[in-house]
Amino acid sequence: MINREYVKMLENKDIIFELAAFANKRRAEVGPDNVFDFTLGSPSVPPPDAVHQALRELLDEGDPFTMHRYTSEGGLPETRAKIAEDLNDRFGSSFSAGNIFMTCAANASLAHAMRAVTVPGDKILAFAPVFSEYEFYAKGAGCELVVVPADTENLGIDFDVTERMLDSSISAVLINSPNNPSGLVYDTETIKKLAELLKQKSAELGKTIYLISDEPYREIVFSGTDSPFISNYYDNTIVCYSFSKSLSLPGERIGYVAVNPKAENAELIVSMFGQISRTSGHNGAPVIWQRVLAKVLPATSDVSVYEKNANLLYDALTGYGFECVKPGGTFYMMPKIPGGDKDAFFKKALENDIILVPGDGFLCPDHFRLAYCVPTDIVERSLERFGRLI
Amino acid sequence: MINREYVKMLENKDIIFELAAFANKRRAEVGPDNVFDFTLGSPSVPPPDAVHQALRELLDEGDPFTMHRYTSEGGLPETRAKIAEDLNDRFGSSFSAGNIFMTCAANASLAHAMRAVTVPGDKILAFAPVFSEYEFYAKGAGCELVVVPADTENLGIDFDVTERMLDSSISAVLINSPNNPSGLVYDTETIKKLAELLKQKSAELGKTIYLISDEPYREIVFSGTDSPFISNYYDNTIVCYSFSKSLSLPGERIGYVAVNPKAENAELIVSMFGQISRTSGHNGAPVIWQRVLAKVLPATSDVSVYEKNANLLYDALTGYGFECVKPGGTFYMMPKIPGGDKDAFFKKALENDIILVPGDGFLCPDHFRLAYCVPTDIVERSLERFGRLI
Repeated sequence: MINREYVKMLENKDIIFELAAFANKRRAEVGPDNVFDFTLGSPSVPPPDAVHQALRELLDEGDPFTMHRYTSEGGLPETRAKIAEDLNDRFGSSFSAGNIFMTCAANASLAHAMRAVTVPGDKILAFAPVFSEYEFYAKGAGCELVVVPADTENLGIDFDVTERMLDSSISAVLINSPNNPSGLVYDTETIKKLAELLKQKSAELGKTIYLISDEPYREIVFSGTDSPFISNYYDNTIVCYSFSKSLSLPGERIGYVAVNPKAENAELIVSMFGQISRTSGHNGAPVIWQRVLAKVLPATSDVSVYEKNANLLYDALTGYGFECVKPGGTFYMMPKIPGGDKDAFFKKALENDIILVPGDGFLCPDHFRLAYCVPTDIVERSLERFGRLI
Repeated sequence: MINREYVKMLENKDIIFELAAFANKRRAEVGPDNVFDFTLGSPSVPPPDAVHQALRELLDEGDPFTMHRYTSEGGLPETRAKIAEDLNDRFGSSFSAGNIFMTCAANASLAHAMRAVTVPGDKILAFAPVFSEYEFYAKGAGCELVVVPADTENLGIDFDVTERMLDSSISAVLINSPNNPSGLVYDTETIKKLAELLKQKSAELGKTIYLISDEPYREIVFSGTDSPFISNYYDNTIVCYSFSKSLSLPGERIGYVAVNPKAENAELIVSMFGQISRTSGHNGAPVIWQRVLAKVLPATSDVSVYEKNANLLYDALTGYGFECVKPGGTFYMMPKIPGGDKDAFFKKALENDIILVPGDGFLCPDHFRLAYCVPTDIVERSLERFGRLI
């Protein structure tokens, strides 16, 4: 007998993939240059040259037998050490190799972090605008995702509501900065305030509330943005990372979980990750990419195009009268839907072959998401069309 | 608060890894040539040359941007089509690309199959000698693994006991042939008998009992062995595969699940795998290895050394008087512990620097597992030492 829970999930169709499919259809009809597809959050720039250089070095110099063997449980020691060193160099943190556990990218990182610090039936608190997949990740851990409604003025954290919602039913708090879908980056003051609140609530409730920090966009931050390394402000932080965006390797499934060495049970949690892998079907991250990371870090793709696109869109849209919080990073922004009639707005956008993602799935129904990880030429030629929408 | 379930799992130390660590220690003490380590089931031969050739071709000819992008949910269409074609060519099956779902190797394949055809609280029936990790894979799906005791004469399936145990609490049956730890390959007659029993029980119980066939050793079968393609004999079969053994790529995490197109809900199950991925932290298999597979299949490593090692060990051990079922494939065999005193046997083996895995973890406490995926030289020099143990 098949498991109907998964069949039921199939009924919640993924609107983003539906829109992307529509965009593909339109590209076939009117030509790729005439479709302004802002749906998918997939890098639009290649990996840095260092990545293919490292692969060539492995093929030229590596032993074809030993290089593909099993790693120890958390991954290659040299890769874990390199990641720790890179974090410490850039953020003044104090990770060591043993605090890092290699994973098959963001979804796997979150699956491990969530399972380690919750038990089935617990609740995980997140903040709108919220990445629509988190709900399913939490469900997989047997937990319910509870979302603090969006502060619709600035899309930041509403601390009064957060404080009220942080009751004994909450086991972990999940944040995502730089943020998908808004592009917002929480500043140092916000992170300090959140850390204070979590410390106070942990003391009040007599339990450790872990902070799960999902940071796949950490390396895509625009000039002048205050982007604190969150784990430095709250000891009980588990950092979830993926190289999908920073190295433009989304199909390769490589990332890590890093447990702050000052976190309660820090060492034990990393050991628990091994057991979580065993039971969840995850069993180590592809070793070839671990070897590449050890060679190329701290390289990133040339992510400057995202800032260029962000500025072009932000300036043009606000010029036309769109209300929009200025993105501080990522390749997303989240303008407010102008006028009162949402359906009319999206209809008009589609008539102009501008494909946008409605904010409903991100629990921001008055906004839409723009994923501007597209060629700048597309952005430039789209601007005039956005003018038609207001 | 951390999840104590995973902490509890840490208490069940993995005896195989402990023994392998002991072997490493002894290698450092007495030199690698003087330790006869038969613990770990990791390939001892390199991948075929075609694998690195394919990687070079990708680097030389592929577009460094597009080649690392996200794939569609189940993986690259061309890889899935190639796998289907390869299965059909060799086994006369009728898979198409849509029946294949790419995974991060065996653990992930089993996680998907188990979650698709059970609900938490269900039981999954397996057969001793049984791979010790299955228990944890089942636990991850919320299920209990129930094991038919070993037929200690031939290590095959005891059908009388199986028939009694196949009651309404069982949702799926899990088999592994060629078998880890015994090296046994179920012959056509056995598979036909099992298929008949499953059909009869499905009818009796009014539900579809799916057969989950774990086949990572399918390509390591010795000459003269009757090794039927199991899915051909029972429609409701889900094939779990990994390229870890056949292509000697255990660290790269690449495999697939194939649903027999004639299975009940065959198409739906593959769609469900996408939802299972979403909730389990799995999110696609590394695309570089999918591209390599599309180029190299049906290549395998030169696995002939395993048969050579098997014959050397089998002939010598049975010559000394060990009782042992002759392995038909894999790189394992499972002799009976000679004499009455198990502790004395393993102690004497260790004194001779022969490192063996006791059968307890495989629910065959009167046997031991020999993993002979080691250089033939080690096998040859070990033989005389086995003579000292009887």
